[in-house]
Amino acid sequence: MFEAVAQFIDDNVNHSIEALKKLVRIPTVAAKGEGLNETAELVEKMLQDAGLQTKIHQTTGAPVVTGWLNVSAKRTLLFYDHYDVQPAEPLELWDSPPFEPEIREGRLWGRGVADNKGDATSRIWAIKAFKETSTKLPVNIKFVIEGEEEIGSLHLPEYTEKNTDFITADGGIWEFGGAGVDGVQEAWLGLKGIFFVELEVERLSRNVHSSLACTLPSAAYRLVWALNTFRDENSRILIDGFYDNMQPLTQAELEAIEKVDLHEEEFKDIYQIDEYLNGLSGMELKKAYYGNPTCNICGITSGYQGKGSMTVLPSKASVKIDFRLVEGMHPDDIHKKLRKHLDDHGFTDVRVTYFEGYPAAKTPIDHPFVKVVEAANRRVFGDLIIHPTSPGSGPLYLFNKHVPMVSVGCSDHLGKAHSPNESISVENYRKAMHRIVAIIDEMSRW
Amino acid sequence: MFEAVAQFIDDNVNHSIEALKKLVRIPTVAAKGEGLNETAELVEKMLQDAGLQTKIHQTTGAPVVTGWLNVSAKRTLLFYDHYDVQPAEPLELWDSPPFEPEIREGRLWGRGVADNKGDATSRIWAIKAFKETSTKLPVNIKFVIEGEEEIGSLHLPEYTEKNTDFITADGGIWEFGGAGVDGVQEAWLGLKGIFFVELEVERLSRNVHSSLACTLPSAAYRLVWALNTFRDENSRILIDGFYDNMQPLTQAELEAIEKVDLHEEEFKDIYQIDEYLNGLSGMELKKAYYGNPTCNICGITSGYQGKGSMTVLPSKASVKIDFRLVEGMHPDDIHKKLRKHLDDHGFTDVRVTYFEGYPAAKTPIDHPFVKVVEAANRRVFGDLIIHPTSPGSGPLYLFNKHVPMVSVGCSDHLGKAHSPNESISVENYRKAMHRIVAIIDEMSRW
Repeated sequence: MFEAVAQFIDDNVNHSIEALKKLVRIPTVAAKGEGLNETAELVEKMLQDAGLQTKIHQTTGAPVVTGWLNVSAKRTLLFYDHYDVQPAEPLELWDSPPFEPEIREGRLWGRGVADNKGDATSRIWAIKAFKETSTKLPVNIKFVIEGEEEIGSLHLPEYTEKNTDFITADGGIWEFGGAGVDGVQEAWLGLKGIFFVELEVERLSRNVHSSLACTLPSAAYRLVWALNTFRDENSRILIDGFYDNMQPLTQAELEAIEKVDLHEEEFKDIYQIDEYLNGLSGMELKKAYYGNPTCNICGITSGYQGKGSMTVLPSKASVKIDFRLVEGMHPDDIHKKLRKHLDDHGFTDVRVTYFEGYPAAKTPIDHPFVKVVEAANRRVFGDLIIHPTSPGSGPLYLFNKHVPMVSVGCSDHLGKAHSPNESISVENYRKAMHRIVAIIDEMSRW
Repeated sequence: MFEAVAQFIDDNVNHSIEALKKLVRIPTVAAKGEGLNETAELVEKMLQDAGLQTKIHQTTGAPVVTGWLNVSAKRTLLFYDHYDVQPAEPLELWDSPPFEPEIREGRLWGRGVADNKGDATSRIWAIKAFKETSTKLPVNIKFVIEGEEEIGSLHLPEYTEKNTDFITADGGIWEFGGAGVDGVQEAWLGLKGIFFVELEVERLSRNVHSSLACTLPSAAYRLVWALNTFRDENSRILIDGFYDNMQPLTQAELEAIEKVDLHEEEFKDIYQIDEYLNGLSGMELKKAYYGNPTCNICGITSGYQGKGSMTVLPSKASVKIDFRLVEGMHPDDIHKKLRKHLDDHGFTDVRVTYFEGYPAAKTPIDHPFVKVVEAANRRVFGDLIIHPTSPGSGPLYLFNKHVPMVSVGCSDHLGKAHSPNESISVENYRKAMHRIVAIIDEMSRW
């Protein structure tokens, strides 16, 4: 099936990688508001080059780029991607500059290649292969490519709420995915929610000589004491009512994850740890991975950060925290509980800034579209491990009432998304394009 | 007395300030090991220009510059100063660049002008005034100017232990001092000790996606939990045995501080605080100021420090802490207790790096040299408030067995030592030179 399409893909891997490099060269860091419009326009051009009609939807934040090709087929396939990336810091840990993509050792290196400019490009080029070979698509195609995924898709609801018809489809491919540590492809059916906040304490008009710590209050210690009340040494979250509405994993999910191998020992080596959090292993580790919310310090800062010693009593301290939420929990509810918890514990001086937040969502594990993806994957890659949810987050809750979504992509366990030295395997990238063609084929016969 | 000397000082304030500016332009940040030799050579040249014999003593760290002029007088006056400065960060808070000194509104601005390149220069130029006017000095003069005061005078003992004859004198002027918030001059007879450490936790081989906080340990939270065990919300230090050997203030000191005005309300306005630590006021505030040790976070860092959100689980976290010590406490003892405390509380994974440390020291409040300084100050400035100790630290313990030291200088409450926008009043600087001449005069008649 689609021999010409497949040939085009293989003959044009390098052209496609060049298009991806062009996309990666724009430092589209949503957290800094950088390069958003420029990238949206480039993505629109890529969609047009693939034969799609396009529209850029303005929001209060970054624009949402959509593309579509209606071939009056029975089934419609939707792609959700994003053109923004995580900050590249700490820059000194990159072996090559994050926004100067380059190929080394069969991999493409650069910020966003794994998350998710690589996937976006591979999907657009899979569709482009139909156009370039004058092959009729057997399903209708839609793309929704947003620019704020890495900061919680803050303004995406402005688009999705007004365009429920557009985002309704028979199946959808979510933005990420790839091979696990043993090289086997993995699919993710859900995403946790997130609640990201910054907490700040300011206790003095300016930094003062640290000798005055005998009589002046410490912003940094206020923050330490507040943080200490959030999470105990067993990593139980202590915010009053935090776990109240949390839904446990279902029986079907527990049965599914029994079969999943989390490669405990391999990842212990990769992360150089003696044990997981609280010594978890086996089924207990899996339950935490798929089913637990978190309270995590993403960054903390106060006072002197340089070499050697500086004796200062800093006037300010701040921390960035992300809470991962599971089904049943809502960020607005957690926000209220966090504020109340701080006030109840005497930390009325700790300011909370709510950066991003949305709830968890999942596609049912027995949905027919899951079988479509599984069959397509088998034709290109082989086995597919199915995870009921990712421990990561994304705005799946905006889509999953309208379209069953499965996340498969071109990354792998070496990808280092959100970290320095992010990369993808060029071979996985090529095969991911073939898998999209296979999904289209399987879907047309569903 | 010494009319020609006084006239020279007044006629040459600008020349002297130019010499000081030259010294400030070298960013002699001891914490970064920057500019030490260059500055030592410039200081030696300044001493030579003032008519002193000089020697640069090499140590394992920064060189110690000495200068002397033996006029076979009965009394000998020693000056202790330092040519190193604190880091200038955060640079963005300076109104003019820290190492490009400039005069605005009657003040000289730049890193080190208040602490203590200004005092060092004023003292050298006071002696230079005798040479330039061919006036015979009535006391012998010695200078010890080191380059690691801001990092705990780590290698100064290499010099002082081998040169006890040189540092023996009838009286000494310590490096800092100046006017209080009401403009009245203040003298400091002692210094607290210090124990400065960096604590580090590393739990993962690299930063990872924060979704994995559900199964992976957090270095930042490990550090928060450890810090929480050091100091409670009433700022009581909880390290086992921390207060064991601490000597309380003496009856004579308590009587002396009864008379001192700490200008509680003015400083509340300056620091924009509603209350002092634990609501302290009056005599209780004074007792804490002169008599309490501290445990202070000078800087804490982990993970993402930039704008907006980044969802990362950082692999490392670190904190810089200074403990101010009072008489009876020793940094080596506190170091052992800190390590044991961490181990006893399960924090064997917290690495401790000992940066600097030395004990407290004081000159007796009834020493005749204190009267000499008081009388000299009265002739130039008027009243002198005498503090039994500063809440700050310095290596006084290396000197005070050999010479009674009093700290008076050219700074004031606007000086912002250790902070951005450090400055001195040019008028105070001029009068401080006159006070040195008056001390020399009073000392010759002691």
